[in-house]
Amino acid sequence: MIFPNIPPVHMEASATVRQRQNSLTKPLGSAGFLEDLSVQIAGMTGSAVPDCSRKAVIVMAADHGIAKEGVSPYPQEVTPQMVMNFLHGGAAINVLTRQANSAVVIVDIGVAHDFGPIPGIYHRKVARGTANMLNGPAMNRNEAESAIRVGMEIADETIDSGVQLLATGEMGIGNTTPSAAITAVLCGRTPAEVTGRGTGIDEAGLQKKIRIVERCIAANQPDPKDAMDVLCKIGGLEIAGMAGVVIAAAARRIPVVLDGLISTAAAAIAVELVPETKNYLIAGHQSEEIGHRILLEKLGLRPLIQLNMRIGEGTGAALAFHVIDASLNLLRDMATFEQAGVSDKG
Amino acid sequence: MIFPNIPPVHMEASATVRQRQNSLTKPLGSAGFLEDLSVQIAGMTGSAVPDCSRKAVIVMAADHGIAKEGVSPYPQEVTPQMVMNFLHGGAAINVLTRQANSAVVIVDIGVAHDFGPIPGIYHRKVARGTANMLNGPAMNRNEAESAIRVGMEIADETIDSGVQLLATGEMGIGNTTPSAAITAVLCGRTPAEVTGRGTGIDEAGLQKKIRIVERCIAANQPDPKDAMDVLCKIGGLEIAGMAGVVIAAAARRIPVVLDGLISTAAAAIAVELVPETKNYLIAGHQSEEIGHRILLEKLGLRPLIQLNMRIGEGTGAALAFHVIDASLNLLRDMATFEQAGVSDKG
Repeated sequence: MIFPNIPPVHMEASATVRQRQNSLTKPLGSAGFLEDLSVQIAGMTGSAVPDCSRKAVIVMAADHGIAKEGVSPYPQEVTPQMVMNFLHGGAAINVLTRQANSAVVIVDIGVAHDFGPIPGIYHRKVARGTANMLNGPAMNRNEAESAIRVGMEIADETIDSGVQLLATGEMGIGNTTPSAAITAVLCGRTPAEVTGRGTGIDEAGLQKKIRIVERCIAANQPDPKDAMDVLCKIGGLEIAGMAGVVIAAAARRIPVVLDGLISTAAAAIAVELVPETKNYLIAGHQSEEIGHRILLEKLGLRPLIQLNMRIGEGTGAALAFHVIDASLNLLRDMATFEQAGVSDKG
Repeated sequence: MIFPNIPPVHMEASATVRQRQNSLTKPLGSAGFLEDLSVQIAGMTGSAVPDCSRKAVIVMAADHGIAKEGVSPYPQEVTPQMVMNFLHGGAAINVLTRQANSAVVIVDIGVAHDFGPIPGIYHRKVARGTANMLNGPAMNRNEAESAIRVGMEIADETIDSGVQLLATGEMGIGNTTPSAAITAVLCGRTPAEVTGRGTGIDEAGLQKKIRIVERCIAANQPDPKDAMDVLCKIGGLEIAGMAGVVIAAAARRIPVVLDGLISTAAAAIAVELVPETKNYLIAGHQSEEIGHRILLEKLGLRPLIQLNMRIGEGTGAALAFHVIDASLNLLRDMATFEQAGVSDKG
């Protein structure tokens, strides 16, 4: 599979922004990570006055063969039910994107349900869920590549419509299991170190889930050096799709805000496939799911929000949009010491 | 000085909100601290559908006699200059309150400068700054009580105008020094443990500042059991004013979002004066200033935002407004499992 070239970050835009931050009427460096974030976004976008006001969360929905093993307390039918909830505006991601003045792009990339031709959803089903990865690969290479391509195409269309900032979100009952497996393999950790409670299994369920992650890895022997192999064997369709979003966005200098474990596992796959994509990632939040911190550390990302959320859907990213707005609003709208007639440091 | 009664938190409203959170279409408890926050705000406001959409940051400005000792890298004239910057909309607090759809209430409670009768500022100067607390009390009891009263009156007027959520912010060159002194005394810590770099002094400046805090405490011997004594001897006019805001707001069931070290030191004084005010506090963020974490722990508050900010002015609180909005929007606007036809946990 051939990926687009990723442009290098724009060092000059970053330097200009750092200089402007130092001239604004606040103690030097006192906006903390908000300043660093504005410098990073300048480098990503290539603009010293970055505009990220038009936003979208791309929510990829898919099912998972592994869900049959009881890794989630919720039945698989919840995946399409929640897609309909997204469509009708009643889910957490709808509430938080409305607040952040962001669009939501809903994509059926692999739900095991026939929605029919209803409008408001991108119907890009690659398969009716993955295969049960306890018994072999979750996807064949063709499926994984198709799903990546769907993600790239949706990202491109969304960017073409004028969106300047993207986030990745997902819905898929069972999808913390492949995400934990990917995290274990890519970070060189044991399943016990990276597997969490997902939507809320009990202690016995967690122990069972850890055993299942171990068995999936043992059965498939994914090659940690070959991200496509990892993705096919122990991944998911929405994970592949979100990896595609990251790659296409980075190719066009559009920053991508990550959500929780699943979104970040997809980004980690994207970074393995195309290392330069890493420069275009922003960690929206740190989720309660234990593997997430480990993935963020591997990617060298600092989360903007830490509120023990574990909803998924892109909610942590949508909440982080306000922090990004704050960072860029301060940069653009604050007065300089000179403009305001304020005495600088003595 | 006689303080108003503080109503107890409304347990029933809190319980109703917890129940509703559990019925919304997200994994049980998965909105993390956003859920707890909505439960707390219900208890504060007494409403199971709390409305905190009308917001204001009350920014109290005052000068400090201790500034003469060189505890800040900025000259004292910056206090009135920044007040004018607030008035003209060019400061960080203006940018962040515009973003959060919040008002800013600017109060001269003790600036060592004559603004004249310019509109847009509450002219409630109690004194032209505090006395140098190296040589005796910063304020006499009459001044401290007057400043508390100003804070109470401004809060009451702001609430009367329809504001449902308040935050406290400040401007005052040198004011991390009294705040560190208050933190040391109220938390039983050494000045070295709680004194930070403020607006950005170097290592030598920090060591000097620690010695000054030690000398101020030694010279004044404030009684840790008598918050009014602490406030008079090692406090500040804006600190007293913000304590007054906390007390008046709590008396009217209006939550108060705290900013950084100085705002939180004021809240700690308020809690010592009127312990029930503690139930009406929300920690907006955790600042970079080292004493802040210690104060938040003492008050048992968890910060909503942690971005190494140390601007002051109420900026951390204003950024946290978005988190509070998210918490209440999710509560109000999300669909329940029943409404959305989504299967609940099996």
